[in-house]
Amino acid sequence: MLGEIKGLNEECGVFAVWGHKDAAQITYYGLHSLQHRGQEGAGIVVSDGDQLSIHKGLGLVTEAFKEGELDQLNGNASIGHVRYATAGGGGLNNCQPLLFRSQTDSLAVAHNGNIVNANGVKHQLENQGSIFQSTSDTEVLAHLIKRSVYPRLEDKMTNALSMLKGAYAFAVMTEDKLMVAQDPNGLRPLSIGRLGDAYVVASETCAFDVVGAEYEREVQPGEIITFDENGMHSELFSNAAPRRLCSMEYVYFSRPDSNLDQINVHTARKNLGKQLAEESPVEADIVTGVPDSSISAAIGYAEQTGIPYELGMIKNRYVGRTFIQPSQELREQGVKMKLSPVRGVVEGKRVVMVDDSIVRGTTSRRIVGMLKDAGALEVHVRISSPPITHPCFYGIDTSTKSELIAANHTTEEMREKMGADSLSFISIDGMLKGIGRKHYDSNCGQCLACFTGNYPTEIYQDTLHPHDKITNG
Amino acid sequence: MLGEIKGLNEECGVFAVWGHKDAAQITYYGLHSLQHRGQEGAGIVVSDGDQLSIHKGLGLVTEAFKEGELDQLNGNASIGHVRYATAGGGGLNNCQPLLFRSQTDSLAVAHNGNIVNANGVKHQLENQGSIFQSTSDTEVLAHLIKRSVYPRLEDKMTNALSMLKGAYAFAVMTEDKLMVAQDPNGLRPLSIGRLGDAYVVASETCAFDVVGAEYEREVQPGEIITFDENGMHSELFSNAAPRRLCSMEYVYFSRPDSNLDQINVHTARKNLGKQLAEESPVEADIVTGVPDSSISAAIGYAEQTGIPYELGMIKNRYVGRTFIQPSQELREQGVKMKLSPVRGVVEGKRVVMVDDSIVRGTTSRRIVGMLKDAGALEVHVRISSPPITHPCFYGIDTSTKSELIAANHTTEEMREKMGADSLSFISIDGMLKGIGRKHYDSNCGQCLACFTGNYPTEIYQDTLHPHDKITNG
Amino acid sequence: MLGEIKGLNEECGVFAVWGHKDAAQITYYGLHSLQHRGQEGAGIVVSDGDQLSIHKGLGLVTEAFKEGELDQLNGNASIGHVRYATAGGGGLNNCQPLLFRSQTDSLAVAHNGNIVNANGVKHQLENQGSIFQSTSDTEVLAHLIKRSVYPRLEDKMTNALSMLKGAYAFAVMTEDKLMVAQDPNGLRPLSIGRLGDAYVVASETCAFDVVGAEYEREVQPGEIITFDENGMHSELFSNAAPRRLCSMEYVYFSRPDSNLDQINVHTARKNLGKQLAEESPVEADIVTGVPDSSISAAIGYAEQTGIPYELGMIKNRYVGRTFIQPSQELREQGVKMKLSPVRGVVEGKRVVMVDDSIVRGTTSRRIVGMLKDAGALEVHVRISSPPITHPCFYGIDTSTKSELIAANHTTEEMREKMGADSLSFISIDGMLKGIGRKHYDSNCGQCLACFTGNYPTEIYQDTLHPHDKITNG
Amino acid sequence: MLGEIKGLNEECGVFAVWGHKDAAQITYYGLHSLQHRGQEGAGIVVSDGDQLSIHKGLGLVTEAFKEGELDQLNGNASIGHVRYATAGGGGLNNCQPLLFRSQTDSLAVAHNGNIVNANGVKHQLENQGSIFQSTSDTEVLAHLIKRSVYPRLEDKMTNALSMLKGAYAFAVMTEDKLMVAQDPNGLRPLSIGRLGDAYVVASETCAFDVVGAEYEREVQPGEIITFDENGMHSELFSNAAPRRLCSMEYVYFSRPDSNLDQINVHTARKNLGKQLAEESPVEADIVTGVPDSSISAAIGYAEQTGIPYELGMIKNRYVGRTFIQPSQELREQGVKMKLSPVRGVVEGKRVVMVDDSIVRGTTSRRIVGMLKDAGALEVHVRISSPPITHPCFYGIDTSTKSELIAANHTTEEMREKMGADSLSFISIDGMLKGIGRKHYDSNCGQCLACFTGNYPTEIYQDTLHPHDKITNG
Repeated sequence: MLGEIKGLNEECGVFAVWGHKDAAQITYYGLHSLQHRGQEGAGIVVSDGDQLSIHKGLGLVTEAFKEGELDQLNGNASIGHVRYATAGGGGLNNCQPLLFRSQTDSLAVAHNGNIVNANGVKHQLENQGSIFQSTSDTEVLAHLIKRSVYPRLEDKMTNALSMLKGAYAFAVMTEDKLMVAQDPNGLRPLSIGRLGDAYVVASETCAFDVVGAEYEREVQPGEIITFDENGMHSELFSNAAPRRLCSMEYVYFSRPDSNLDQINVHTARKNLGKQLAEESPVEADIVTGVPDSSISAAIGYAEQTGIPYELGMIKNRYVGRTFIQPSQELREQGVKMKLSPVRGVVEGKRVVMVDDSIVRGTTSRRIVGMLKDAGALEVHVRISSPPITHPCFYGIDTSTKSELIAANHTTEEMREKMGADSLSFISIDGMLKGIGRKHYDSNCGQCLACFTGNYPTEIYQDTLHPHDKITNG
Repeated sequence: MLGEIKGLNEECGVFAVWGHKDAAQITYYGLHSLQHRGQEGAGIVVSDGDQLSIHKGLGLVTEAFKEGELDQLNGNASIGHVRYATAGGGGLNNCQPLLFRSQTDSLAVAHNGNIVNANGVKHQLENQGSIFQSTSDTEVLAHLIKRSVYPRLEDKMTNALSMLKGAYAFAVMTEDKLMVAQDPNGLRPLSIGRLGDAYVVASETCAFDVVGAEYEREVQPGEIITFDENGMHSELFSNAAPRRLCSMEYVYFSRPDSNLDQINVHTARKNLGKQLAEESPVEADIVTGVPDSSISAAIGYAEQTGIPYELGMIKNRYVGRTFIQPSQELREQGVKMKLSPVRGVVEGKRVVMVDDSIVRGTTSRRIVGMLKDAGALEVHVRISSPPITHPCFYGIDTSTKSELIAANHTTEEMREKMGADSLSFISIDGMLKGIGRKHYDSNCGQCLACFTGNYPTEIYQDTLHPHDKITNG
Repeated sequence: MLGEIKGLNEECGVFAVWGHKDAAQITYYGLHSLQHRGQEGAGIVVSDGDQLSIHKGLGLVTEAFKEGELDQLNGNASIGHVRYATAGGGGLNNCQPLLFRSQTDSLAVAHNGNIVNANGVKHQLENQGSIFQSTSDTEVLAHLIKRSVYPRLEDKMTNALSMLKGAYAFAVMTEDKLMVAQDPNGLRPLSIGRLGDAYVVASETCAFDVVGAEYEREVQPGEIITFDENGMHSELFSNAAPRRLCSMEYVYFSRPDSNLDQINVHTARKNLGKQLAEESPVEADIVTGVPDSSISAAIGYAEQTGIPYELGMIKNRYVGRTFIQPSQELREQGVKMKLSPVRGVVEGKRVVMVDDSIVRGTTSRRIVGMLKDAGALEVHVRISSPPITHPCFYGIDTSTKSELIAANHTTEEMREKMGADSLSFISIDGMLKGIGRKHYDSNCGQCLACFTGNYPTEIYQDTLHPHDKITNG
Repeated sequence: MLGEIKGLNEECGVFAVWGHKDAAQITYYGLHSLQHRGQEGAGIVVSDGDQLSIHKGLGLVTEAFKEGELDQLNGNASIGHVRYATAGGGGLNNCQPLLFRSQTDSLAVAHNGNIVNANGVKHQLENQGSIFQSTSDTEVLAHLIKRSVYPRLEDKMTNALSMLKGAYAFAVMTEDKLMVAQDPNGLRPLSIGRLGDAYVVASETCAFDVVGAEYEREVQPGEIITFDENGMHSELFSNAAPRRLCSMEYVYFSRPDSNLDQINVHTARKNLGKQLAEESPVEADIVTGVPDSSISAAIGYAEQTGIPYELGMIKNRYVGRTFIQPSQELREQGVKMKLSPVRGVVEGKRVVMVDDSIVRGTTSRRIVGMLKDAGALEVHVRISSPPITHPCFYGIDTSTKSELIAANHTTEEMREKMGADSLSFISIDGMLKGIGRKHYDSNCGQCLACFTGNYPTEIYQDTLHPHDKITNG
């Protein structure tokens, strides 16, 4: 499953409010519902019209904000961010929003995605004497805005974005304006909602439900939306291209109660499971899913086949940053950290194990082994996404091609490596159908680069060497 | 659901190891899997044969133990404890295990349950000059052991336990002995497992799976088991009575992958859902369960009726001790903390909402309202336990009788209060059948006091005034 | 100097208030002025007439009490304590005051001194079933009070104290009474002051000046003073014996602005320096004192001889608990931690170096070497206390006899060891004269045991083995 | 005394090492000895030749660096900084050294002093698109260096410094070079020492004694010294001007064991006291000094007049950042925080009270009142610096002219306001003589601007509005 490389994932969550007197509080609850998109750090910048105030902290939203700290963030507008783990990540300095103060005004930036030409642009700016505060690719946007010669902020922003390539959902705030923007391919989700007279913006719609807001619409590919004293205004900074939303958002990353492009994620996942059952049925006694992201697909698979859904594995909810890893010796003796099998359920059974994806294949092998050790007679692995054969450069860092098992092995080889009795992946068309899209073409609405190698943007030399890569938000 | 009064619950989890060189590490992982039984504090005492070492901390196991702290607990035997919230709780001092050092030897005690005559015994001991360190009822056992005139520790323990009434699973350790004991009615679960040559003891068997141990047997009602240089020995300190295991352990409290009395909890819950469907079917579009404890029952209900199971609500996993509560005003505007409805799933649907129990009824009312606000056409509430009409004094503090909605209202009145379209509870016999017991009699294996008022022990005057009550572990 | 074995010193400071609405605040400032008596921990217990509240913390008073924590200690009466380092000390549990709660009432105890028969009494109590919370000798008093059969608290206290031997200044508080007591020899200082209508009690009178109180009188040897609704009452629990105040309180331990037995400490020290100059003059260019405790004596020596007083050494004020010690290698390269010489002052000079005492001699050797390295032509060491030839068992733990350099060497041998050009100690009679006492006899007012071996109390077997010793306050 | 406005002072301390394998450790001990120059924060940057590592923290050096943190700073070169309080100061971000990383190299900067044209230069840079990380004037230097078109770092530095006006001692480090520089007037002290083959640089020479280094020479006004693989090199970036060292460094700020311009500070202060006694003798019983900075002058005054020096006041050493201030009510009742009088010493005495300076006069008034309350018959105030009539813009922020009591009142008016029996200041020539300088002229070696208004640099409009001022190091 994709979770196996969480340490390398680089997803984040963005939330913003315009025009509500409790902007910071609402952002806190909004970020809280986006917590699954990043657990390494959280921050909020708020504007009271005259000045920006900031608070950031490491860890969960509830760890980053202690009682009383929220009350000091006064203002009607705010942007917030939750940050995913990054290898070698630089701590609080790389947490977002980034806030840049000058003698005349301030600028705050929050970002979800990955700028593929960040290194090149940064190098150029440093040669001109700019000093960067963080190793985040997000800061590049701020420098481009500051150096832009246009007087109007919207034009500075358009100017700056035109120099960036990649996947992004940006929220930018000054003392008197909030701006959000999405990359020309719409790779990362970003939606707009209404909360009474106020506006809210979020990476996922689940945040709207939590704060009591109503969904309004998606931010469009290549669109900049500005909120200011005159309300909400839209501009396109790029020629309209068809949206290519990251498929992994449906398969694995988003929360099941979110709608992406107006499609509910749980429903999509359940349909992926049904579709998978149609494509690859098997005779078995129980269906089980790898928690949490594969439960919906497993229930769909069970519903379609009539094989009962059972709790074959359980996930320990409390494995967090501060978990003390067991020694190698204890691990060999059977100490499990995160997932444990339910012997009473799987013993003597033929098990269909539904998982969302296979990246390196090591986790799948471990789970199959765990189920067999617990007495499963057969384990049939069903994957609710197609084989991942190409790395992602847009925020879900599936590492280098050499590490992707499906890039280098046949399905039969993979099955054998993981010790499964059978292994099937959903087809690309089946996945699109499950999500609710038309058949596969450039207009299908989804980015499928990790399955096809067909990347929607140019890929730069420095993007290809992730070990040198600057981290992102 | 029972979770609504978590603040008053007084469950805990106990784990012990005898004869393993990594006793503290194994206890850490064991406690981690018992985390659902208590999140307020955790502690481990370890014996190296010569002396006891202790570390305790507030919060989750992962918060209480930081890297390196575990390594300082060297020894082959250990007892550990996770502690539930208690009103007015006293912080670290009340966290367990309690460790009592004297010039000659030491004694560590960990406890799950509630001693109903603790106040009276404590009063008597204080009048004789004893000084108590904590407000925990657990400490009473230590004083009784220390004051016992018998020379052999097993006899001191028998002597001390004979003076205590209530529900308990105790783990007691000295430099060279580990003892565990269960009350004469076997109200709280306690099981023994083997890990190679070592023994492990746990409140729930899920801890065995996590540390790679194998289930051996239950501790019997009224049994003291001693582990020492001669291995494992058993004595009964009380006349054999039939076990009366707390029914709420199956319904709500235990982890679904645990077996209680050799019955798997998830399977029992799914059967409760099926039984409920048989007793109280309804025409509807979807079945949903209140996460997490009611999911299994909801899946059972769906499987039995053929109505699809859907994710109608989602629980935010990260609501913890440090969560900043929304203001009343924000709550009224719709900010949700813990549960949120999935509009895309429930809108326009007739919903069966399965919950595990109703205590005060306020949570059920809130959930029904939430689902209707999200567009549910009808909400049919199905409860997988019988009406709770009497308070519990054995560790799951369901408060006073006056607050129990089912003690004071008919089912129809309750339905109306919560705004549901229909409301049904499982029958007592149905529940016993779902769990896998014979029909209801004094031999049925379960404590049913909260449904019937038929308490298995004497109830003391001071037990009846919970506001004066000393807290327990 | 005595400071060289600070780690082993076991002095503490006690402060109490009766009848002031800001009792806790006043105690905070009082303890703050007693900070030199103990930097390892601080605590305050306050009574509002109905119940006792407590706060304790590690480190300085300012570290132990954070903004806001003090405000939660409401009441008109309080006792407070600052605690000295103790080898292997047990952290917060051993910090004082100790608070013992029972179902009917509470008891708080703070203590300065050392009970020499604590181990024996404790052993006896444990055999009778008592459980001790701390390894502090202070707790013994609480158990004796609780087990006393007398109904009146004053009688319980008298009864308990009659079983204890050693040096002590106790402050004991219940919901409605404050009691202070001093041992029959008056070894440790304890004074009473008035603050308007309220009473304050302190280990040193400097605390009175800081809180604006006026000195009233000393607590007498063997006296218990009770403060309650009827005001202040005195009882003697022991036959009157002449006071034998610890001489080191004048020489080294107390703050120079305190008066002990109505004698100002700075003045006494200056007189010790003058007396020393009379007894052991020397031809030199400058006089310097080891900071801080020997500055007054050095100024006295300079004034008496007419040799100018100069700042020959400086002490780094910020060496605290968290100071990172230099590696052995860096120390050899000349990195200094606490004292550094002022080269510009001592270079090319004949220096009189005044110090308060010599215990093991290692510090003196280091200082002499440091001054010579900085260019001093001659270093003449003058010590303002007589040679310490016997260990102290009353709270200033000067270790075992074998480690006392003066117990095992002549003055000439010591001089040679430390590389000084001359070395003189003040005489016993000279010290008494400097302090302002009559000549040496059993009525001289001072304990001189560490110079003479003439101990004012019985010494117990267990007192003689300090490595087994329980720690004290 | 100058200490009364500590909150506004803006002094700092700088320390650097070149060519020692324990560079970070040595810097830690060096900074520790400069702790009196700044207690708000501390930081160290170290270079191992390939890369720079940094650690900074709030509070004292011992608070900012915890065990283990120092060990992670590996390298042969380092710069460190201790920071003084600044109003509204921005926390850790404003702590120094500042570290600026780019894709190609890094730059660390530490600074003591105040750049008087920082705001103007910063404004200009921001208009060109530069983004500043801190509100510190120190960062301006980094941006000027980065934007300089010269290829050689020494030339970039010369170029950058030529644009800055004010008082400064800079330490700048890259991967392979250490550079230190002093402003053209030499307002802030900076000295070079040798530690075996290594070089050390420090704001005060006391740091050399502590780390075992030997004094080599002062950095000259307008000099840049570079340390690199070729050793130590010097360049002048400004025409030689006579040094004008801040007089307050002798009077108040530096540690008494430091030498400034080869003059020992304690000796200078003692001479100031002697000179003051010659200029303004008085008949009295005792001389006392306001601790700590006026003790040396008081001893000098006593020695010169033959009146005995006594400890008339005592300073509580433990008043730190976390001290809880007494309420107004308690303060009126006599609770003292920092200084307390020694009644036993001053009662019934005619007292000469020596202080180092008078800024607003409020502290002096408080001390005079305190001594009289403690029974002093007369209080004669003697100040060891001339009247301060003009604000300082070079790092010791003596606030605006309107707040300087001597700018607006005659000596007799001041005496009356503070309730003293007499008041005298040392003369300017007397001060210069005490320090060891020739008579007053532009070549006298000292900056006397705060006494004369004769500023050695241009003063900018924005310098005159300190409320808008950016803070400095």
